[in-house]
Amino acid sequence: MSVERVHSHVVTEAAKNCLTERGVTISDIAEIVMQMQGPYNSKLTIEECVDSVEKVLLKREIQHALLVGVELDKLAEQKKLSEPLQSIVEADEGLFGVDETIALGASLGYGSIAVTTFGHLDKNKIGIIAKLDTKVGGGVHTFLDDMIASIAANASSRLAHRLRDMEENLPPEERRIIEDE
Amino acid sequence: MSVERVHSHVVTEAAKNCLTERGVTISDIAEIVMQMQGPYNSKLTIEECVDSVEKVLLKREIQHALLVGVELDKLAEQKKLSEPLQSIVEADEGLFGVDETIALGASLGYGSIAVTTFGHLDKNKIGIIAKLDTKVGGGVHTFLDDMIASIAANASSRLAHRLRDMEENLPPEERRIIEDE
Amino acid sequence: MSVERVHSHVVTEAAKNCLTERGVTISDIAEIVMQMQGPYNSKLTIEECVDSVEKVLLKREIQHALLVGVELDKLAEQKKLSEPLQSIVEADEGLFGVDETIALGASLGYGSIAVTTFGHLDKNKIGIIAKLDTKVGGGVHTFLDDMIASIAANASSRLAHRLRDMEENLPPEERRIIEDE
Amino acid sequence: MSVERVHSHVVTEAAKNCLTERGVTISDIAEIVMQMQGPYNSKLTIEECVDSVEKVLLKREIQHALLVGVELDKLAEQKKLSEPLQSIVEADEGLFGVDETIALGASLGYGSIAVTTFGHLDKNKIGIIAKLDTKVGGGVHTFLDDMIASIAANASSRLAHRLRDMEENLPPEERRIIEDE
Repeated sequence: MSVERVHSHVVTEAAKNCLTERGVTISDIAEIVMQMQGPYNSKLTIEECVDSVEKVLLKREIQHALLVGVELDKLAEQKKLSEPLQSIVEADEGLFGVDETIALGASLGYGSIAVTTFGHLDKNKIGIIAKLDTKVGGGVHTFLDDMIASIAANASSRLAHRLRDMEENLPPEERRIIEDE
Repeated sequence: MSVERVHSHVVTEAAKNCLTERGVTISDIAEIVMQMQGPYNSKLTIEECVDSVEKVLLKREIQHALLVGVELDKLAEQKKLSEPLQSIVEADEGLFGVDETIALGASLGYGSIAVTTFGHLDKNKIGIIAKLDTKVGGGVHTFLDDMIASIAANASSRLAHRLRDMEENLPPEERRIIEDE
Repeated sequence: MSVERVHSHVVTEAAKNCLTERGVTISDIAEIVMQMQGPYNSKLTIEECVDSVEKVLLKREIQHALLVGVELDKLAEQKKLSEPLQSIVEADEGLFGVDETIALGASLGYGSIAVTTFGHLDKNKIGIIAKLDTKVGGGVHTFLDDMIASIAANASSRLAHRLRDMEENLPPEERRIIEDE
Repeated sequence: MSVERVHSHVVTEAAKNCLTERGVTISDIAEIVMQMQGPYNSKLTIEECVDSVEKVLLKREIQHALLVGVELDKLAEQKKLSEPLQSIVEADEGLFGVDETIALGASLGYGSIAVTTFGHLDKNKIGIIAKLDTKVGGGVHTFLDDMIASIAANASSRLAHRLRDMEENLPPEERRIIEDE
């Protein structure tokens, strides 16, 4: 197949646009991160939370998951999916789990803190996640709300690992490497 | 939202149609299962493999994953996805992993044999999976080939667990329960 | 190797003993299930929760995970692990995630409701899980508390799927099959 | 609990020792990586494979999984596990999956290429993995062989992502970030 390969920069840009056009800001997500990690780190600033969210958004796995999830949400909103998928996604059916599978898959790379925080956020619908709940507003956000939970969980886990590196006075070079976890 | 809930029977029917309309038969998948489990069980028949594939296709998680995957393949074939997702799915990009995430998610319920068999099938593209490879034929099967690998892996793992139950002479009632694994 | 294969009955018995000897009853777990699923099903009885926990405990994946987790907890209590693993498990280190990995692995088979409920329980430490917290009592329960969260989450997801089957008036035979999910 | 927190350096050292004392060298693992990634990258050198394995071994998740897995293998070798776990681990029972769960959990952070490569290596037992097979030699390597498959799979996926960054001529700074994936 002769399809041209898409450059990383294009994918990064498109993933960020997915959030913007669906009304979600980096700040919205950073606020969830602050709520999750603040209790463990009294010196945590909102700027650090914003930075952590931005780092998470640079990952290919996250970008691809966002592209797929938001595409499905938009197609459902426009009634362009085939039945019965259209009805299932539009209703954000309780037993439909592909949205959580994609979002969880994007969290597994950030360790166990990301996974349990994802479950907690997904169940308790904190901050912007509650506002996005498909069953509340007019739009369809079946996939997006799980992706926001995943991104916030990843950014939280990332900060927990970084904090530990700081406490251990690791030199910046090692910090970078271990931070990659 | 006033969307009517879709009945399980409708979802089951739709999932089976996903396979048929994309040219995949239950037999195609059963043959992969035979190739995987035959070496461990000399008495295994193709009928048992067919039955195991059919049982796997009754699971909600599998059905939902099939509906989503085939929908995305078809939309990509019709050039109806937004860019850059259209190009990524159409080209079955090596670093795009949402297809594997969805398929792996559908395999995790069948234990570790399912997971390693899935990896093996996905990498070595056995039987119908090779024929579906997006890069070979004209159609787009980026998601479907992974789903076939997942279904075959699950049906294989299911047979391995059943074989053990037989060897232990478990009474049918317990067999049923442990077989649920 | 000439090791005799262990019969399923022996493994089932041993897994149940793991709970009893660590002071956890089926009722303790059933109460968490009631708290999780009661809000979605006003007719749910504690007997149904007990039954669901018992069904989950029949699964090989769960039994094996319990055997491994409780073994490691007990060895840590007896100071019999090598360093630095001994200190890490004894302290239930925040960044140590093998306990969550094993427990999550045992939940993935029960669908997305199990996964998000597991995250919620693991983070919010409800009921017996709080009492087991290694950092509170004298014993080491680094692995057990995650396994209880996993079992309760699985039993909860199982009930959610069953409820749906009832609402759809599926005949018992189909119910059994779909319930297997 | 007054247990002193273990420094990252100590954990890193201990994880490397797990390999050495069980007779596995970085080179053994790098050779598997070369076999996996060589076909996709004709310029790949064994030095790059060694480097990739070493980077993977710096991750906390991998280190913790190695510590737990090798501890269980050694305890089984010394007949120090409780029954029936002792017999199950010693025999490397086909339906026992906690070893794969831990190893897969350590691979999920490296994206879908890691997961499918893990399944392939685990099933086909390539290189040092075959030599470690519990059923062949005298020792117990039930957990270690899966961990080697996981580490090799992760190092392979890491190289695939890096290769792409090179092909796209990403500046080193971005490369570092995307490489973290």
